[in-house]
Amino acid sequence: MGNFPKNPDVRISLPVVCFVWQIAMIILFGLFVRYDDESDAHWSEHKHENNITSDIENDFYFRYPSFQDVHVMIFVGFGFLMTFLKRYSFGGVGFNFLIAAFGLQWALLMQGWFHSLDPADGQIKIGIENIINADFCVAGCLIAYGALLGKVSPVQLMVLTLFGITLFAVEEYIILHVLHVRDAGGSMVIHTFGAYYGLTISWILYRPKLSKSLNGSVYHSDVFAMIGTLFLWMFWPSFNSAIADHGDGQHRAAINTYLALAASVLTAFAISSLSARKGKLDMVHIQNATLAGGVAMGTAAEFMISPYGSLIVGFICGIISTFGYLVITPFLEKYLKIQDTCGIHNLHAMPGVLGGVVGAITAATASESVYGHEGLVNTFDFKEKYAERTPAMQGGFQAAGLCVALAFGIVGGAIVGFILRLPCCWGDPSDENCFDDEVYWEVPEDEESILPILEYNSHMVGKNTDMM
Amino acid sequence: MGNFPKNPDVRISLPVVCFVWQIAMIILFGLFVRYDDESDAHWSEHKHENNITSDIENDFYFRYPSFQDVHVMIFVGFGFLMTFLKRYSFGGVGFNFLIAAFGLQWALLMQGWFHSLDPADGQIKIGIENIINADFCVAGCLIAYGALLGKVSPVQLMVLTLFGITLFAVEEYIILHVLHVRDAGGSMVIHTFGAYYGLTISWILYRPKLSKSLNGSVYHSDVFAMIGTLFLWMFWPSFNSAIADHGDGQHRAAINTYLALAASVLTAFAISSLSARKGKLDMVHIQNATLAGGVAMGTAAEFMISPYGSLIVGFICGIISTFGYLVITPFLEKYLKIQDTCGIHNLHAMPGVLGGVVGAITAATASESVYGHEGLVNTFDFKEKYAERTPAMQGGFQAAGLCVALAFGIVGGAIVGFILRLPCCWGDPSDENCFDDEVYWEVPEDEESILPILEYNSHMVGKNTDMM
Amino acid sequence: MGNFPKNPDVRISLPVVCFVWQIAMIILFGLFVRYDDESDAHWSEHKHENNITSDIENDFYFRYPSFQDVHVMIFVGFGFLMTFLKRYSFGGVGFNFLIAAFGLQWALLMQGWFHSLDPADGQIKIGIENIINADFCVAGCLIAYGALLGKVSPVQLMVLTLFGITLFAVEEYIILHVLHVRDAGGSMVIHTFGAYYGLTISWILYRPKLSKSLNGSVYHSDVFAMIGTLFLWMFWPSFNSAIADHGDGQHRAAINTYLALAASVLTAFAISSLSARKGKLDMVHIQNATLAGGVAMGTAAEFMISPYGSLIVGFICGIISTFGYLVITPFLEKYLKIQDTCGIHNLHAMPGVLGGVVGAITAATASESVYGHEGLVNTFDFKEKYAERTPAMQGGFQAAGLCVALAFGIVGGAIVGFILRLPCCWGDPSDENCFDDEVYWEVPEDEESILPILEYNSHMVGKNTDMM
Repeated sequence: MGNFPKNPDVRISLPVVCFVWQIAMIILFGLFVRYDDESDAHWSEHKHENNITSDIENDFYFRYPSFQDVHVMIFVGFGFLMTFLKRYSFGGVGFNFLIAAFGLQWALLMQGWFHSLDPADGQIKIGIENIINADFCVAGCLIAYGALLGKVSPVQLMVLTLFGITLFAVEEYIILHVLHVRDAGGSMVIHTFGAYYGLTISWILYRPKLSKSLNGSVYHSDVFAMIGTLFLWMFWPSFNSAIADHGDGQHRAAINTYLALAASVLTAFAISSLSARKGKLDMVHIQNATLAGGVAMGTAAEFMISPYGSLIVGFICGIISTFGYLVITPFLEKYLKIQDTCGIHNLHAMPGVLGGVVGAITAATASESVYGHEGLVNTFDFKEKYAERTPAMQGGFQAAGLCVALAFGIVGGAIVGFILRLPCCWGDPSDENCFDDEVYWEVPEDEESILPILEYNSHMVGKNTDMM
Repeated sequence: MGNFPKNPDVRISLPVVCFVWQIAMIILFGLFVRYDDESDAHWSEHKHENNITSDIENDFYFRYPSFQDVHVMIFVGFGFLMTFLKRYSFGGVGFNFLIAAFGLQWALLMQGWFHSLDPADGQIKIGIENIINADFCVAGCLIAYGALLGKVSPVQLMVLTLFGITLFAVEEYIILHVLHVRDAGGSMVIHTFGAYYGLTISWILYRPKLSKSLNGSVYHSDVFAMIGTLFLWMFWPSFNSAIADHGDGQHRAAINTYLALAASVLTAFAISSLSARKGKLDMVHIQNATLAGGVAMGTAAEFMISPYGSLIVGFICGIISTFGYLVITPFLEKYLKIQDTCGIHNLHAMPGVLGGVVGAITAATASESVYGHEGLVNTFDFKEKYAERTPAMQGGFQAAGLCVALAFGIVGGAIVGFILRLPCCWGDPSDENCFDDEVYWEVPEDEESILPILEYNSHMVGKNTDMM
Repeated sequence: MGNFPKNPDVRISLPVVCFVWQIAMIILFGLFVRYDDESDAHWSEHKHENNITSDIENDFYFRYPSFQDVHVMIFVGFGFLMTFLKRYSFGGVGFNFLIAAFGLQWALLMQGWFHSLDPADGQIKIGIENIINADFCVAGCLIAYGALLGKVSPVQLMVLTLFGITLFAVEEYIILHVLHVRDAGGSMVIHTFGAYYGLTISWILYRPKLSKSLNGSVYHSDVFAMIGTLFLWMFWPSFNSAIADHGDGQHRAAINTYLALAASVLTAFAISSLSARKGKLDMVHIQNATLAGGVAMGTAAEFMISPYGSLIVGFICGIISTFGYLVITPFLEKYLKIQDTCGIHNLHAMPGVLGGVVGAITAATASESVYGHEGLVNTFDFKEKYAERTPAMQGGFQAAGLCVALAFGIVGGAIVGFILRLPCCWGDPSDENCFDDEVYWEVPEDEESILPILEYNSHMVGKNTDMM
């Protein structure tokens, strides 16, 4: 396998995949998806029936600003973070766009079947919370793309997304509903799963002769990537609070995330400077490790972890993540044969696992004295059949949830990795064509500034030699 | 006309236009514009009188997040989308900034006279909805700028904006108030009008000898343009829902637009790949055709078009729009003498018309079984003197509205086009200076990286010849 | 002082500062910072006790959208505005990121001790308003950084921030609490203070032999800077309204700022064009002077200044600010020995002072006929011990507040400037290494496009000479 010559022509395969899957989405949406009570024109009747006095009580107004921030993270945040390569900016931001746009549709269906099925008519009822969750679900696949950036074809990415969303929805159902685990910002469900899913695929698709010459940045591409970094960093409080409980839940999740992220910045700068000749900072660390605090607060952000607790989490993550870029990524590539283009192991895998652990500990140590009785019940949803659950038990279930996320990521990644290695019309690039937009894009010729020089030089050459 | 040599010096004309018009705005605002009930310091009294219990009921909290998203679309979205040319990024984002900043002031006045005049004192009362509408009105002129990008002077653009806003306000009044048509996201009022306005002006200002060498992108300018694309794409749900009805109206409009846009992405990628050698994608398609679904949902987004209906609209528009870039734009230029720099015919004209048609059909087929009685009345505003109107009638009026938008765009564009061709001190560039920022901007010299090479080379030349 | 050779190695000093200060933050947060009533899990009990009927009454929903906009201004707005230098984009956006992330933590503490101390337990209770205020406080230091861009080390910037935040919190306490002055958008507290703080430091750190060759932009860096400009411009209405009163206060502040900014754009373009050969626009003016209207509305935005009043303020500021770039910045450098890299004197100092004056006049002329009795009391907070204050008195206190801001900026800047000149391990660059990212960053080699040319040329040289 892999020894026959690569043909990166996707002229048939990419359009077929896009058309067939989009048509399938339309049919499935036609069969299954309808508006929920708050987005349906019957809302005015629903208001009367439920004694809702004002339109402002519509969930739209609680969550839409956060939704738009999350949406920016998915498309501009992840997209521009992946423009850092010198000749793969089109592929970074463009394929991110493609797979996110497909993934969110499939996520609405998959998550809908598991979470939003109306038993009355067997249909999925969607509202603002569903589209936030669809964006979240897509994030898992985009994280996986980070490990594979520049080394796979768009057709492979579409397959990775199809399976990734499916696995995500099952994993999420088990973690959030079967185990009744809290994970509002998805340290486990999104980051741990997505990262190990991508790393395992990358391990299976290992390329021993991978070209290094294009696997790096230039000055302007590093500045473009900072657009991605900053939009992720700024809007992470919205990410972790978007589907938290109304009121104090969203409020606290935003504040905790804001603090953890700030602490990550300082320790990422510190380790980056400490590790280099003359203390020179490395843009890779600044672009990525500064975000680790947001990942690690994904579970505990809505808990009463306290402001200094958030700072401690961010402090540790900034160190671990930068250290990962310095030491662990080269180690993974050299000894474990895992090529991780964006370093998602450092930004998502380790901080995600840490976030799951922090969440478990914070949950296990929760008490009525800190939360108040009602607050404890609301925060951990100790209601109905979970009314008897104690914080200590909840901590155990949180830890179990982390294991489920890890297992789904690794096993799922192994299966999808093998599928993507099957001899087929994947259209993936040869080793020497990796990290090069020329393979899948009509790249404009940047000659404008170069040609005049050539002409000028050849003219000079003529003149000089003439004079002799 | 047009045969005398061009003089693109705007040193007198541009400052005069800016100063005189800004002073006129101040005088007219002084005479006519005041705060409305919700932005005036009398709000606390207004609350008591209207039994409003909480400040959160102020329209500001329903619409401000959407307003800010729309604002980003106008200035960063349209602005950066127009940075794709290799040497016209300053003009793209800079003149967009200038005409939007002027246009929104004039729009507050023009739209205010038609829609927000307080009969008690003859003054325009403005609040959050007015400034959203002003941004919308500006969008029409920015679309028109897209057809003319690189070929006109800032003075011509200011004139285009002055007339464009005026025509827009009249057209909007006829469509929304006289015909009582629904068009929350402006498929007709904004996109159809704006596109035909710009295309007609471009037709009249046809340049037979237009230089091609600068009419294209370079690698980094395409990445800059993706910033524009993505902010337009992400925030289009806010655009179509910003002035929809409180509650389910805004909620549904956002969801429908979100879905249509996602479908456009897949079909735009599919057609782009299908049409090129080796399936290579073209950045022009990805930057533009992916947005077509948002344009086409401008009218129907707040209706009960259903989620799969939105996907179908996006699916079709992505195909039509990409096809337009491949076939129709070259055709328009060659046979109809319409030079359309940004391809607004594909992104705004065709999807806008389609959006008007979709809106008319969706309205005509609306029923109480789908909307509920109250929902139908609220969605189509079948109140007071329109209480007797049926959905079928509404569909007819919607279609009539589309014709009005088309007529205003074409006739208005013809008039303004002729004005802009009058021999005058327009300061427009000669054919060979089009698409070049040097004409209107102090462009920094990018020699820093080139000069050392020249020196190095001439040095080498010397050495080589010496050795002989 | 300053004569011994510079050693810009920060490998020890930067990590030490980051670590020690971050650990100090954690300890101080552990001792002092807790959630407030609206972000604590006891919120549900707080609701019952205070008869709050809905979670939507949580201050989070009034202010979170504005907070996120402010957050974007701080990190992307200020950060990208400072990427305009041809070889200092990493330092511009990167050090902005570092000092803002540190500053906001220290600001939560400093402002908390002055404004949010709970007398019951001596702890700082934080919520959404605190994190907005922390971002505001950081803005003052980022403005100061603008004057020093490219000429100081990150260690110096951290010290500048530590003292800047401290001074800010004291100054703010005196102005807002002791003098009971209104300054929601911080014309005085943020802009006047921050600008004079930075200018004074720059004056003390004067570099007579400062290299000019890198103190300028290239084409793409000017486009990057426009990202900063536009996000500042678009979100300034959120900045000035973020902590204004609920309801009409926030609503009016947003509208007034929106209008003033629009007017600034037209006059900035006009003066820029008028001042140059052939009317060519200068990107420096467009990037900066267009924002002056937002600065100048920082105090009066929430007052009943009326829409045309806002336009007049913006009109004047656009002129003054552009004029400043043309005349005053060169004058300051040549005669007063103040080197102001970003021209903060024109964008923040002059418009800030003007904003303070406008605020004082608007306050002094306020009347019950315009505001209504309740509106006047709410807008100026004429309650409790200030119940007897009249608008005329308030105008006087506003003017006094402006003087306090000026005094703190100048005296504070002088002290900090002297500290930063002490012979120490600051790691600041030598005069010829200013404005160069190479000093503090691992800069990727951009040779990729250049080396092939060299090879090609040397090949051609060979060929040509061979033929002879």
